[in-house]
Amino acid sequence: MTLRVDLNADMGESFGAWTMGDDAALLDVVTSANIACGFHAGEPDVMAATMALAAEKGVGIGAHPGFRDLAGFGRYRMHLPPASLANDIRYQLGAAQGVARAVGGEVRHLKLHGALANMCSEDAELARACYDAALSVAPDLTIMVIAGTAQQQAAQALGCNWVGEIFADRAYNDDATLVDRRQPGAVIHDPDEAAARVLRMVREGAIVAASGKRIPARIDTVCLHGDTPAAVGIARAVRAHLEAAGVTVARFPG
Amino acid sequence: MTLRVDLNADMGESFGAWTMGDDAALLDVVTSANIACGFHAGEPDVMAATMALAAEKGVGIGAHPGFRDLAGFGRYRMHLPPASLANDIRYQLGAAQGVARAVGGEVRHLKLHGALANMCSEDAELARACYDAALSVAPDLTIMVIAGTAQQQAAQALGCNWVGEIFADRAYNDDATLVDRRQPGAVIHDPDEAAARVLRMVREGAIVAASGKRIPARIDTVCLHGDTPAAVGIARAVRAHLEAAGVTVARFPG
Amino acid sequence: MTLRVDLNADMGESFGAWTMGDDAALLDVVTSANIACGFHAGEPDVMAATMALAAEKGVGIGAHPGFRDLAGFGRYRMHLPPASLANDIRYQLGAAQGVARAVGGEVRHLKLHGALANMCSEDAELARACYDAALSVAPDLTIMVIAGTAQQQAAQALGCNWVGEIFADRAYNDDATLVDRRQPGAVIHDPDEAAARVLRMVREGAIVAASGKRIPARIDTVCLHGDTPAAVGIARAVRAHLEAAGVTVARFPG
Amino acid sequence: MTLRVDLNADMGESFGAWTMGDDAALLDVVTSANIACGFHAGEPDVMAATMALAAEKGVGIGAHPGFRDLAGFGRYRMHLPPASLANDIRYQLGAAQGVARAVGGEVRHLKLHGALANMCSEDAELARACYDAALSVAPDLTIMVIAGTAQQQAAQALGCNWVGEIFADRAYNDDATLVDRRQPGAVIHDPDEAAARVLRMVREGAIVAASGKRIPARIDTVCLHGDTPAAVGIARAVRAHLEAAGVTVARFPG
Repeated sequence: MTLRVDLNADMGESFGAWTMGDDAALLDVVTSANIACGFHAGEPDVMAATMALAAEKGVGIGAHPGFRDLAGFGRYRMHLPPASLANDIRYQLGAAQGVARAVGGEVRHLKLHGALANMCSEDAELARACYDAALSVAPDLTIMVIAGTAQQQAAQALGCNWVGEIFADRAYNDDATLVDRRQPGAVIHDPDEAAARVLRMVREGAIVAASGKRIPARIDTVCLHGDTPAAVGIARAVRAHLEAAGVTVARFPG
Repeated sequence: MTLRVDLNADMGESFGAWTMGDDAALLDVVTSANIACGFHAGEPDVMAATMALAAEKGVGIGAHPGFRDLAGFGRYRMHLPPASLANDIRYQLGAAQGVARAVGGEVRHLKLHGALANMCSEDAELARACYDAALSVAPDLTIMVIAGTAQQQAAQALGCNWVGEIFADRAYNDDATLVDRRQPGAVIHDPDEAAARVLRMVREGAIVAASGKRIPARIDTVCLHGDTPAAVGIARAVRAHLEAAGVTVARFPG
Repeated sequence: MTLRVDLNADMGESFGAWTMGDDAALLDVVTSANIACGFHAGEPDVMAATMALAAEKGVGIGAHPGFRDLAGFGRYRMHLPPASLANDIRYQLGAAQGVARAVGGEVRHLKLHGALANMCSEDAELARACYDAALSVAPDLTIMVIAGTAQQQAAQALGCNWVGEIFADRAYNDDATLVDRRQPGAVIHDPDEAAARVLRMVREGAIVAASGKRIPARIDTVCLHGDTPAAVGIARAVRAHLEAAGVTVARFPG
Repeated sequence: MTLRVDLNADMGESFGAWTMGDDAALLDVVTSANIACGFHAGEPDVMAATMALAAEKGVGIGAHPGFRDLAGFGRYRMHLPPASLANDIRYQLGAAQGVARAVGGEVRHLKLHGALANMCSEDAELARACYDAALSVAPDLTIMVIAGTAQQQAAQALGCNWVGEIFADRAYNDDATLVDRRQPGAVIHDPDEAAARVLRMVREGAIVAASGKRIPARIDTVCLHGDTPAAVGIARAVRAHLEAAGVTVARFPG
């Protein structure tokens, strides 16, 4: 049986006159694009252009909502009431659907951004409020969760479509959380090392911690980055390595 | 044959801690609600609450997009490139659809707000860019236009569903434009006078200018206001007067 | 010796087309006005109008910075890096000074708003970062702190001008914190009761807890509210009661 | 007598996670920096960092206010009431002063940004409202105007300190306006050509139009750009050429 995996990256994070990332290059590598929805990054022109390019290249379009915080890029925790957060998700997802439809695309999945994602990976109740809100707009949406976290628990509890994600360039602790960025080795900079790690995890169906510990997990998609030329290099290496090993790189079904 | 007319008002114009208008009162009078979409007023909580109440009361939900200008409430002209304006419309309409869907409602129509509406009532090309953008998101949407203006020309040229609107409390010039607010008599404050005028225009199928001139027009809906207690009084008087005269007050079909 | 106290209230919390509070009424009661600086409420027109009125009535002008969160009115905790928060304070204070100068006024004090104030009343280090930032812009500024909290500790540690504040309409716990709003009796609605309590605390130079416990404190100013007609009524009652008892109600010196 | 000229550039146009321009490189070339004030670009962290670097390098700090339009980078015309625009200028200038003071710098001048600058170069009344607002905050401020436009008329009518600016890389029409960017030769890309033109205009005390026509003008400062590596190259060439020709490159006095 052939192994199959999706590759995803955050995209559409430019804003007006400010450019971020090399979306065009990355859209040749990934199979799913998580597109910012205007609260932490992105605005309608950027969303439309990025979605049109994704649709043209056959890359799956996802909504990537975050906190309403342009100055902070959604990177800082905000303690909004969950009901307000739910409406913020509905609004951003709806906006993404509207723009996608206008350019001939379709929003297939949703992935949370930044501090909101972090909070939801620790708090299943908050994650559930966000995902439930998204499903109230689009019942067939696929929720992209960080494998093994409270995000996954929330999606499972809701009984919705979901896919599990691992990171190509981050080391894991034994409890499947990410090693703190300030620790040595937390971020993997070598394309070959990143690629080899990803292949191993996909093959084993498990997160492999820095200690070598295997944590069985559903791995449907691998998170790549494109904010630096080096990041695009890692992304390309991961894809090439997976394909050379016979893994099918394709959009997750749904 | 029974005459029939829709009554509409702008709504959902509160923002966070700031309240504007008496939406609950107005939703007992109107049959269509134009709900702000977050760029000039409204935010996801306000949109959700207003749409839920409209859906509960059987009032038709419309998206009411405007310029991205909270501080100016969308009242000032901004000279954006039409292509950017188009994406702003797509984004706001999509957001409104998402929130509406989540609360069990549906966006039936679109009406432009403030300075954007004014610019489009003078410039058919700009109006067409906006309406075309909206239809690229929702091809069956009904466009609510100010009767007899470039807005109407644009909708007709696009061949889409549209309804024509008159104002209950504003005097008209002989060319169907509104009398400048600074002129005496430009704004009608007397509920009975407003109600009588509206009934006459609906019966005659024509805008009646301050001079008495009749300008044949398709009158599907009447714009009411709810930002002051007096405005709600006029709204109630118009509805009561129409119904007493045997006019059916109901959502426009579609 | 005559007792003397300042009365302060948050003001200038309207935004564009949205009005909040009855600033004109309140400016006849208070002696210091904490004016929102545009991040959580207020914008340049509102700031200018409020400051001009305060200057005209001899009310001391204060900057009232908060989190950059219009939709949440600065009510939700945001975990920004303290260095960024410091720059946000500098920016807002400078803006307030600029507008004040233009209308013939002067910013005499600074009081933190909402969630930021709450966080700083618990975390002296954060409070110190904020106050230090403000003093880097205006070394002679008076910092208005919630008496007996980490805010006061921070101001004392900095050795700057500061005044201590109590609340007219909130019950206190034995540790000088406020009784949770959800508890019965937490908020005082009766003008006479509020006025009598304030007089007692000013006379005794102590916070008087709901239990009757006396907590000695430097009480320079009393926080009033003006967001409802009832709140304005309490404000007036407090002032009348203090003056009737021979307390001088005046701007704090500085 | 030695000729002397100031070199200025727009700076501090990054925003949060988004970087724009190479401010550090440009601060080694220019003698005055026009720093964005948060409405169209810049935020408190960027402002503080840019001003600190400018102060360290002895570059004069200027406030560079624009329309409140982050998504449009202040590039689109907005028709605000002049009184509101005036308060927007006061707010931005005050904020810039506050941040500058905190980092040990001082705001010496003000230059309008983008569409606001364009509107004010055509409309002396609007320019006057903006400049008058700035002077109400800082009476000794130097206003940087585009030489020969309505901006200059407004500054002269106000009798304030002002300096006249020419552009290093733009061709002029015979009436001292800029050649439309869509015309061939409108933008000068060759560093040597730009440098030679600037030197000639500084020496002759006149704008030299594309036709060769001389338009006498007060030329105190030359506008350079730094948004591309090529632009930084032109900036360096202009400075080197001026200095090689014996012109003193220094901050304008004041």
